[in-house]
Amino acid sequence: MARLGENRWGKTDVRVSKVHHADGEDGLSDLTVQILLSGEVELAHTVGDNTAVLPTDTMRNTVYCLAQEHLTRDLEAFGAVLCDHFLSRAQVTGVTVSISEQIWGRVGPTGFIGGGTERRTARVSGDGERTRTRAGIEGLVVLKTTGSAFSGFPRDEYTVLPDADDRLLATSLTANWSYSTLPVDTSVAWSSARDNILGCFFSNWSASVQHQGWLMANAVLDAVPEIDEIEFHLPNQHHLPFDLTRFGMVDQGTVFQPVSEPYGDIKFTVTR
Amino acid sequence: MARLGENRWGKTDVRVSKVHHADGEDGLSDLTVQILLSGEVELAHTVGDNTAVLPTDTMRNTVYCLAQEHLTRDLEAFGAVLCDHFLSRAQVTGVTVSISEQIWGRVGPTGFIGGGTERRTARVSGDGERTRTRAGIEGLVVLKTTGSAFSGFPRDEYTVLPDADDRLLATSLTANWSYSTLPVDTSVAWSSARDNILGCFFSNWSASVQHQGWLMANAVLDAVPEIDEIEFHLPNQHHLPFDLTRFGMVDQGTVFQPVSEPYGDIKFTVTR
Amino acid sequence: MARLGENRWGKTDVRVSKVHHADGEDGLSDLTVQILLSGEVELAHTVGDNTAVLPTDTMRNTVYCLAQEHLTRDLEAFGAVLCDHFLSRAQVTGVTVSISEQIWGRVGPTGFIGGGTERRTARVSGDGERTRTRAGIEGLVVLKTTGSAFSGFPRDEYTVLPDADDRLLATSLTANWSYSTLPVDTSVAWSSARDNILGCFFSNWSASVQHQGWLMANAVLDAVPEIDEIEFHLPNQHHLPFDLTRFGMVDQGTVFQPVSEPYGDIKFTVTR
Amino acid sequence: MARLGENRWGKTDVRVSKVHHADGEDGLSDLTVQILLSGEVELAHTVGDNTAVLPTDTMRNTVYCLAQEHLTRDLEAFGAVLCDHFLSRAQVTGVTVSISEQIWGRVGPTGFIGGGTERRTARVSGDGERTRTRAGIEGLVVLKTTGSAFSGFPRDEYTVLPDADDRLLATSLTANWSYSTLPVDTSVAWSSARDNILGCFFSNWSASVQHQGWLMANAVLDAVPEIDEIEFHLPNQHHLPFDLTRFGMVDQGTVFQPVSEPYGDIKFTVTR
Repeated sequence: MARLGENRWGKTDVRVSKVHHADGEDGLSDLTVQILLSGEVELAHTVGDNTAVLPTDTMRNTVYCLAQEHLTRDLEAFGAVLCDHFLSRAQVTGVTVSISEQIWGRVGPTGFIGGGTERRTARVSGDGERTRTRAGIEGLVVLKTTGSAFSGFPRDEYTVLPDADDRLLATSLTANWSYSTLPVDTSVAWSSARDNILGCFFSNWSASVQHQGWLMANAVLDAVPEIDEIEFHLPNQHHLPFDLTRFGMVDQGTVFQPVSEPYGDIKFTVTR
Repeated sequence: MARLGENRWGKTDVRVSKVHHADGEDGLSDLTVQILLSGEVELAHTVGDNTAVLPTDTMRNTVYCLAQEHLTRDLEAFGAVLCDHFLSRAQVTGVTVSISEQIWGRVGPTGFIGGGTERRTARVSGDGERTRTRAGIEGLVVLKTTGSAFSGFPRDEYTVLPDADDRLLATSLTANWSYSTLPVDTSVAWSSARDNILGCFFSNWSASVQHQGWLMANAVLDAVPEIDEIEFHLPNQHHLPFDLTRFGMVDQGTVFQPVSEPYGDIKFTVTR
Repeated sequence: MARLGENRWGKTDVRVSKVHHADGEDGLSDLTVQILLSGEVELAHTVGDNTAVLPTDTMRNTVYCLAQEHLTRDLEAFGAVLCDHFLSRAQVTGVTVSISEQIWGRVGPTGFIGGGTERRTARVSGDGERTRTRAGIEGLVVLKTTGSAFSGFPRDEYTVLPDADDRLLATSLTANWSYSTLPVDTSVAWSSARDNILGCFFSNWSASVQHQGWLMANAVLDAVPEIDEIEFHLPNQHHLPFDLTRFGMVDQGTVFQPVSEPYGDIKFTVTR
Repeated sequence: MARLGENRWGKTDVRVSKVHHADGEDGLSDLTVQILLSGEVELAHTVGDNTAVLPTDTMRNTVYCLAQEHLTRDLEAFGAVLCDHFLSRAQVTGVTVSISEQIWGRVGPTGFIGGGTERRTARVSGDGERTRTRAGIEGLVVLKTTGSAFSGFPRDEYTVLPDADDRLLATSLTANWSYSTLPVDTSVAWSSARDNILGCFFSNWSASVQHQGWLMANAVLDAVPEIDEIEFHLPNQHHLPFDLTRFGMVDQGTVFQPVSEPYGDIKFTVTR
């Protein structure tokens, strides 16, 4: 006769981000959370009786709902709040909460640089007669908590997106440009292009990803005279509002669900 | 003066799956779609005027809405329907629809084996006195369009999941087991374990992932006497219904949104 | 005073493949192996005394050397051989060998289809005047143990590659083609293209990846009249011979080291 | 009659790193290079005549050989050197060299922090009676060009690794620790642990990865009294010397081949 041994159930890869509004500067938490429970669930396995099986969808919702009040910079405290919450559910006898925080670097009061996927790129091609040189940046992840909008777009029968006058904007920026004449110091030119892209992203209000990109492109063309054309690829890393009103809560607009797929995919070229 | 060059915008990695109900057997389409548009959007870039920028969220919705009626086994025909649809929107002058279909192998009238991430595993450990041997399967992706339920679970203030009497179930199955005595032919034993896992998954109705796993574990223990304990890891690869009623449509329950994160995470051991 | 607790050292992701030559048909093992040892290594940690630390490079070499004689279809037996071998080294008190086998499907006596990354693709683009349709295959992984060569190439001061009259050839094939007129049944046309690609890969001897690709392209153009142009991308998934003669062994030419990077990168188009 | 259309061949994902020794501080280049050639190779495709097909293995070797003299911080200049070199080969009519540089941050004269995969982690588990809290760091990539050795290890019939008195050491560090009592400020405690790990890695000479880890563990235990146990996982990200003497060159020991697999895998726990 078979017996149930060690077991647990839960939800993995719950992605939650939160903006901590504060005097002068916003904070940002970007977490991936796993909840694993154990309990008196033998009948669920053996005869399909689910009366003790808290749904993993509920675990997910709980993470977002408790994040609004309880998520601070103290990961361990948020872990303890979640742990205690699930222990208070009937039939749950053990809880493990694992939290992994993506580390972002601060840039100004509402801006952040994240991840370390950034790379410097160069491409040289020749055919014996002519050599063309491109340079670029790949995977520069940036996020701002304010200073971006998207409204006034056309609406059809499949449009439900609300206008947004001020939204969180994040992208993993790739840019590359051609040099009409090679700069004396290509590293200095690259850094100047990068600085102007970042400066523009974090300080200029934009009406769309396209608009933001146009401003950045112009900043680069103004700063580096050897560049005659620049191409941007700006995947929109969506941070969806997680609707807390479904749970009888007042939604303060600080809790988001970052999603990997699908993503808005914007690409364009600007020339002198 | 800078000028806008080549440009397009769109939505990438729109994942849509559809069950094709038919006499005797269900078909399955599992697609990843990209929509890229070009059009008269210069003012969107230069002055932030979005009147010509169809939102990428709308593109996503459109894929799901048109999938219900138009998605068949003919990818090219679905691509043409999407292409024509977006060309009918004002200010859109060019469309590229790219579709990539995950290939699933059929197992019975409502079952499928997918992906090729499957691996056979073995683990031998020793300390000079005793040798322990485990064997297993990793990444065996299976899906059934019917024969799985999840209802009767506890509800709290964060529970919105509806009861499901019959749902689509998919998992990337990992199992490993210990041998009390080594089988004469370990490849035969492995194949027998695998066959029983698949046979049970595709033919036994289950009340939950846990219940499904229990049945599979028992089938293996019955079939291979040398196995004395088996561990399952069954991540629930959620296929969320995509609510078409928001768009004034009758939802036939055949169009799903597969999501990678988060996922339900079930792990347990069954011993003799 | 700090004390060393649980510890182990080893080598992870040792990739080894082996061709099992047999009457009539070749077998293939494609393994990823992990060796973890524990032993009396406290002094290595605390004072940097390495006399008990078998190098992880040695573990790697051992896997290849023992594979030639001992690796069969029985993973558990190969695991036991490795386990016993490392237990025979001085100061090693515990060994765990973990093996994960990539599963390949047989196609004829010396051919295999692997992985399950294969996808069917389609691309439809239009501008209101004209619609273009492409279809394709992505990630079709194929391997043949014989029937491929590469010799007679130019040599310069950086060339050390020996001529190969008969080598193992593996690739993750991507192909896509344009339709001048749309086939009545696009699924039938796709299958016909795929069948001809596979038939040619497994039955035609080739002098290079380029030559193999040309033959496959011609087979598709012959079989599907609606196709007017086909593009192939054939990354060469190198299986390097692992030189066993360094260890005083006779190298039988059956043990390989598959490498992920770098890879030979061949891409071309064939038109009618 | 079929005709060959656009085509190119080359080598992708050639990983090369170089240490730039200089007065006072070392520089580091960490590149991934792609070489794509086009030329008069129609006969290679159509009849298997390889006399014009420069082997992709040769392209790889060339990257390493030319890196020793020509690779500086100026990516575009190295690209141009490679481009001109391949254009000088017979039958090559077009070359595209693409270079992507991993960006590392400097820490002291010979140390670097790389990548942005770093995450802060926390784990809280409870069973209603007792709560345990762990905290940690994941994916902290560090490299030092000097100050690490590995010699005096046991040698058997499969050992070919030479003693190294001074080698480049890189790892993607994961550490996690348990708190006997929770610190008043968990973020301060985490930063203190991280600072001590980095300080030790970059300033302490070590005789092995194990020795390096022991020193780091002790530094953390000394600095944060609430930590009673710490676990390290230190995968050795090998940078293999690329033997240039095979090409008649004097090897200056500055050019390396970073490899992803296999890797040395060291894990241990240190307790008070």
